[in-house]
This record gives sequence, C-alpha cells and structure tokens, in this order.
Amino acid sequence: MMRTRPLKVALLGCGVVGSEVARIMTTHADDLAARIGAPVELAGVAVRRPDKVRAGIPAELITTDATALVKRGDIDVVVEVIGGVEPARTLITTAFAHGASVVSANKALLAQDGASLYAAAQEHGQDLYYEAAVAGAIPLIRPLRESLAGDKINRVMGIVNGTTNFILDKMDTSGAGYSEALDEATALGYAEADPTADVEGFDAAAKAAILAGIAFHTRVRLDDVYREGMTEVTAADFASAKQMGCTIKLLAICERAADGESVTARVHPAMIPLSHPLASVREAYNAVFVEADAAGQLMFYGPGAGGSPTASAVLGDIVAVCRNRLNEATGPGESAYTQLPVSSMGEVVTRYHISLDVADKPGVLAQVATVFAEHGVSIDTVRQKGKDGEASLVVVTHRAPDAALSGTVEALRKLDTVRGVASIMRVEGE
Amino acid sequence: MMRTRPLKVALLGCGVVGSEVARIMTTHADDLAARIGAPVELAGVAVRRPDKVRAGIPAELITTDATALVKRGDIDVVVEVIGGVEPARTLITTAFAHGASVVSANKALLAQDGASLYAAAQEHGQDLYYEAAVAGAIPLIRPLRESLAGDKINRVMGIVNGTTNFILDKMDTSGAGYSEALDEATALGYAEADPTADVEGFDAAAKAAILAGIAFHTRVRLDDVYREGMTEVTAADFASAKQMGCTIKLLAICERAADGESVTARVHPAMIPLSHPLASVREAYNAVFVEADAAGQLMFYGPGAGGSPTASAVLGDIVAVCRNRLNEATGPGESAYTQLPVSSMGEVVTRYHISLDVADKPGVLAQVATVFAEHGVSIDTVRQKGKDGEASLVVVTHRAPDAALSGTVEALRKLDTVRGVASIMRVEGE
Repeated sequence: MMRTRPLKVALLGCGVVGSEVARIMTTHADDLAARIGAPVELAGVAVRRPDKVRAGIPAELITTDATALVKRGDIDVVVEVIGGVEPARTLITTAFAHGASVVSANKALLAQDGASLYAAAQEHGQDLYYEAAVAGAIPLIRPLRESLAGDKINRVMGIVNGTTNFILDKMDTSGAGYSEALDEATALGYAEADPTADVEGFDAAAKAAILAGIAFHTRVRLDDVYREGMTEVTAADFASAKQMGCTIKLLAICERAADGESVTARVHPAMIPLSHPLASVREAYNAVFVEADAAGQLMFYGPGAGGSPTASAVLGDIVAVCRNRLNEATGPGESAYTQLPVSSMGEVVTRYHISLDVADKPGVLAQVATVFAEHGVSIDTVRQKGKDGEASLVVVTHRAPDAALSGTVEALRKLDTVRGVASIMRVEGE
Repeated sequence: MMRTRPLKVALLGCGVVGSEVARIMTTHADDLAARIGAPVELAGVAVRRPDKVRAGIPAELITTDATALVKRGDIDVVVEVIGGVEPARTLITTAFAHGASVVSANKALLAQDGASLYAAAQEHGQDLYYEAAVAGAIPLIRPLRESLAGDKINRVMGIVNGTTNFILDKMDTSGAGYSEALDEATALGYAEADPTADVEGFDAAAKAAILAGIAFHTRVRLDDVYREGMTEVTAADFASAKQMGCTIKLLAICERAADGESVTARVHPAMIPLSHPLASVREAYNAVFVEADAAGQLMFYGPGAGGSPTASAVLGDIVAVCRNRLNEATGPGESAYTQLPVSSMGEVVTRYHISLDVADKPGVLAQVATVFAEHGVSIDTVRQKGKDGEASLVVVTHRAPDAALSGTVEALRKLDTVRGVASIMRVEGE
C-alpha cells in the first residue's frame, strides 16, 4: 500500500549536483515513488543567487534562506550539496534538530566533523547518509558499512580523485610533464582554476579519512591522514616506473597494522604494478580496492565526480532514508567501537624506489649500501648506470617502516658521493 | 545501549560456506555484536551427516532435522546454504511462517521462485536477503537494490561464473583448447567433476535472471534467460578475437530495450574489446559492469565463489537482517512494479563475428554480401584469405536484431559456395 502524503525533500545548493538531483526527482518521480513506497517531492531549494534561471524548478520553491528551510519542521530529508564546512555544518545540525534526516555529499565536513554530525543525528533519531562524499557514483560507503559488515577489512586502497588520475594518466600515456598535463586537464574541465585541493591531495585525504573510519570502525580525522600531493611527479618518474613494470597513481591507502592494534591513512603518489587492477584505471575514473579477511580482494570502479554520477549517489541515499522513515527506523549510525588509534606515517610499512645521482667511482655502491644497512632497510634491487664521471643508482628496497626509509634518504643526501636524490617514490600494491 | 538477549541464527547446511559462516560467527562474535548492536549466536546447525567432525561447532547444536530447527520459533535468522530447489524452498517458507528472516545463497531457487519467496517473506513480515547468490563476495545485490535505487539502470553485463572464466582465461593466455583448459580447471578444483551447470551456462543464467529482475524492477525467471554454454569455443575463436583486438568471455547480459518497453537477459560467450574493463578479469574472478543513466559506467570486481568470500556476503546479510530486527523493520522487498516483459533472444540487438569456409572463386563475396543485405544486416568489415581453391571469409556485422543475424547465418549455410560455418561469435561491449 502506498501512502499518499509525500515525503518532502529540501535541497541546499543547486549547482551542478543539486540541479541534477532536482531534475531526476522530477523526471523520475513515479519510479522513485514506486521504489520508496510513497511519493517524494521537492519542497524547497536554498540557493545563493535566486535570480538565476533554474530550468524545471518552480520559482516558488527557491529561497535564499537556507536556515528557515531546514527549520520548517515538515521536511523529511535535507540534501546538503553546498560543500565546505560552514554554513553546511550548522544547517545539517539544525536540520536534525527540526526532525529531518540528512543526505550530504560533503567530504570535507565529514572528514573533519563526522563524529559530531553522527552524534547530532543520533540525538534526534535521524539518519546521516553520504554515499556521494567519496568516489561519486561508485557504491562504496554502503558496501563498506553494510555488505562487508560481517567481515574484517584490512586495507582500502583507492584512486579517489579524478582530476589527479586524469593528469597522471596523461603523463603516463603521452610522456607529458606535470604542468602540460595539468593544462590539458584544465582545458577539458577536469581541473579547477585553482587545482590545489586536488593536486596537493587534500580532497583525497578527506576521502581517506572517511573510508578509514568506516573500514576500521574507528574515528579517523582529516588531520590524522598523511598527505603528499603529486605536483612533483616527473616524466622521469614515469620512465623509472615503466622499467619496473609499474605506473604511478595518487593513492589513498588505509591500512590496519599487522598487529591489528592501530590503523594508518595516507595519500601520496606511488608506483603500482601494471598487473594491479588499479593500474588500468584511466582518465578521470575512480576505483577503490578493498582487501578483507573473508571476502578477499574486491574492487569498485566508476566515475568519481560530475553532476549526474554524484546525483545518482545522492538519490540512492534519498531512497534509503525515505524507506527508513516509512519503517520508522534509521540506518546504521557511526560505528567507532574499535577505538583503534591512528599511527603516524613513520610507522607505515612500505617500499621506496630511490633514484640517486652519484659520483661514478669505485666504492660508491658500498657506501650507499652501508647507509641502507645502518637504517635496517634491506635492498631488493639496485641498478647502476654511469658515463663521464656521472652515474645514477636506482635502488628499490624491501618493505620497511617509512621512518627508516626516510631516515635512509636523509643520510644518503649527506654522503659526499651522492650529488642528489633525483626522485623518491613509494611502491605499493604488490 | 546493547540489548542482552542474543539474536539467534540457524544454519541450514554446513559445507564449505556454512562451516565458514559458523567459524566467523564464533571467532568474530564481539565485532558482530558491536556492529549489530546486540550479540548474535549460532542456535542450531542442520546437516545431513551428523557424525562428521565439525571443528568449532558444539555437538549439541548439530541436528539432522532441519524442519524442526526452522519451526523452533525462537530463531531470528535462518541461513540457507543447502542449495537446490527442495528442500530449500520449503524450509525457507516454513522459516518465514515461524517468525524468522532468511539469508540465502541459493541462486537456482531465487531465479526460479524469487517472486513466491518474496511474497512469503512479506506475508509474514520477514526479510529475504541473498547477496551471496550472485558473484560471491562482491557487493552487488545491495548496490543494485539500494545504492542505485534512485537511478535508471540500462544494462548489466558481467562475468558471473568463475569456472568458465578460469577456462576461457587459460585458453586465451596459453592457446589451450577447451578440454585441455577444463582438465586444468578440474585438477585445480575450479571445476566440479560434472561441470555442466557451469560450462553450459545454467549457473550464469540463474544469476542473470536475478540481476535482471533487480536492475529493471520486473520479474525475470530462469526460463526467460537465453542461454548458450561455452563448450564450443575454440582456440581458433581466440585467434580470431585477437585479430580484432578482443578476447572471449562468457557473459551474462541484461538489457533494457532501446524503447524502454521490454528487457532481455542472456548468457553466451562473446568477444569483447581488450580495452573493456571486463576483458582484464582473470582466472576465477567475477566482475559485473553496470550502466545507469546518471551514474554512468560502474564495475564491481572480486572473487565470485569459494567458502570464505561467500561467507562474507552471507555475514553482511546476517548483520543487515539483525539490524532490521532490532529496528523492528524490514529491508527492501521485491520491486517488480515496472512489469516490463522479457523479450526473446531474436529481439536482442547485437553484432556477429562469422568465419566461413568458402570456395576460392570469383563472385563468392558478392553472393555472401547479398545474403546479408537480404536480411537487412549491414557488414562492418570483411577479411578474405585464400589458397589452393579453399578460402575463408571473416565477416563482422554492424548491430542488428539477433533474429536477423541468425537468419543470415542459416541462409549462408545453404549457399553452394559456403562449405561451412567455422564459427559464430557475438561481439559485445563496444
């Protein structure tokens, strides 16, 4: 039996994502009603510029007073697609206090204040859903929170930023340098005018915090995530990667420590083998690789951004929240019961690929090898190339704590015979 | 607040999957309790051979009387991992009638009787979950039923049988013939002694029926699925595929017709371009590619079978059902509101790759081309090779209804100059 009072959705923000959510809610109203079990209607849209023409949205729904909209009291679901911390945070908590559940696509806010938002939702018996905050349309939050709820996740490793993947893919396939590839990404609309949040890894770090928290049932905040951008990746790094049968991706990696007593979360460029499923993720696509005790290795792949894909994720959440309301229930809340601490980058166990410019004379390799040994880092392979008194030495290490690896690099820089460290890149996915 | 009365789980079947479910329920009891919000305990295990040693399962939980177990009345969740139609069906409906929800991994039963099982679940206010029935550990049913509930799915195309993917991958990489590759699969435990259900596509067809029903919100039964096995794929077919930049996979394909008024579901081997994400799915892995209006192209990848992966999916469902019970709610039921009819294979629009043995004399190509034209099938490419009065002709068509394509092949067989049809293979994923 379908009830006749419609569920009411308020939209905060009507940009690329919000306008697509509004469009689909209108054009697919019958499907949504059938799937929810009740009609769902757009009850208000808060915008900054009310005079802008918004096709398909009745003018009487438009308001500039977002606070009044979330306080109306008859709203079932508030969809927050404004982004940023404020006023989004206050609007969301106000919505909970006035009896609405919230669907958000706001990764920055969730990475920073997820715990307090969950607490506010729980206090008022409301739902907080945010599938769209990580990897756009790719169903990821729900599989991690629900499908894998009976399993033990050990690692989540993903390409969660489309802009940087587009740039790195261009560098890989065309041999272009970073700035050339960035220019192309900007021209094609894949990179914003100020690409800092993407290329410096801030966007990916927010997603890593969210994923780590869900995967390990503990609280991981943005500040807990180690972050390195990809602006210093060079064409020479790609050439080195190719020699190793690898490519380079900007990865978000969330891991449970071997002893199970702590977790880590980090974002940095890394070499991964071409045979790894993430290596073939092209252009602006996203993909997340999950390793769990029982399930084994899973991968989720799809468009990580864009109005329509993000709207798809938002609408899936709207349907879920509406179904919950008809059931007079709520979905899963925060799960942080393990309270596992987040370790620093120094404790992460990884491998380094190091290119050194060295003097071409006898004894250099012995000197270099001694530095590795002193730091307890064992060497997997060494490649030497020399000519005219100059030489390069490429060392790939075995697995060791990042602190030992970075300590080794610092000590190498101090050797007289080492003229420079041409590149350092972590090697993952083996 | 955690309630103290545990939720009770009854296990029907204690083979590869069941024993792993029991093991994880015991070893991860604290995690499951924290995630569910209440402890969950194994209350009974129905087996055929009670004398077999079952490590970690207390003897007093073992029974041969599955019916009595599901009728106990204090069971919250019945986990059915027996497989087959009976007695599984009767046990499931009996469980519903006695107040238990059901988690099943039974693809054959769901493909045949999904609608009546859903009806029984709804009648008694119980849940029916079956993530493990399709593609093992890969979260697929939940993403389709929930994450994409606000989107319009147009196509689901997947590798959903690990045995056949292993065989085809071996043929592709080693040049082996079908029976040689099957022997290897059998020796390694990837194929059963009687591989019919896998190699003839019955297993994949059951999964296609389930996926099509969920994706298109209509009822699709096993009998509605067109099915061709992969026992006739040859090394020569792989050679042809390579020449086209393709490989061969056994695909389950569920599509919405272009006019949106009907759907189709089919299982058959097909050539797909090496650039397609499904082409790189190796060994016994499964992957499902989903195309939706707003989300775009998504792929879900992982192990499609095996005790642990399947147990992971079962446990995710146990957690979900237990959470629902604590909420005094149920999850999404059957969604078949579109009532879209299932069209026959003849109406599927696809492309054929046809290899003909022909007489090497003038006019043959003209004759062959006339047959295609008469059936309204246009040709994309033709390749001729000839020597010593014998020749072969390889034709790749443009897209046309399967009825027209198969009609063309029948007419070609009747030409005097066509000595035989060496192979026919559909081309998908472009």
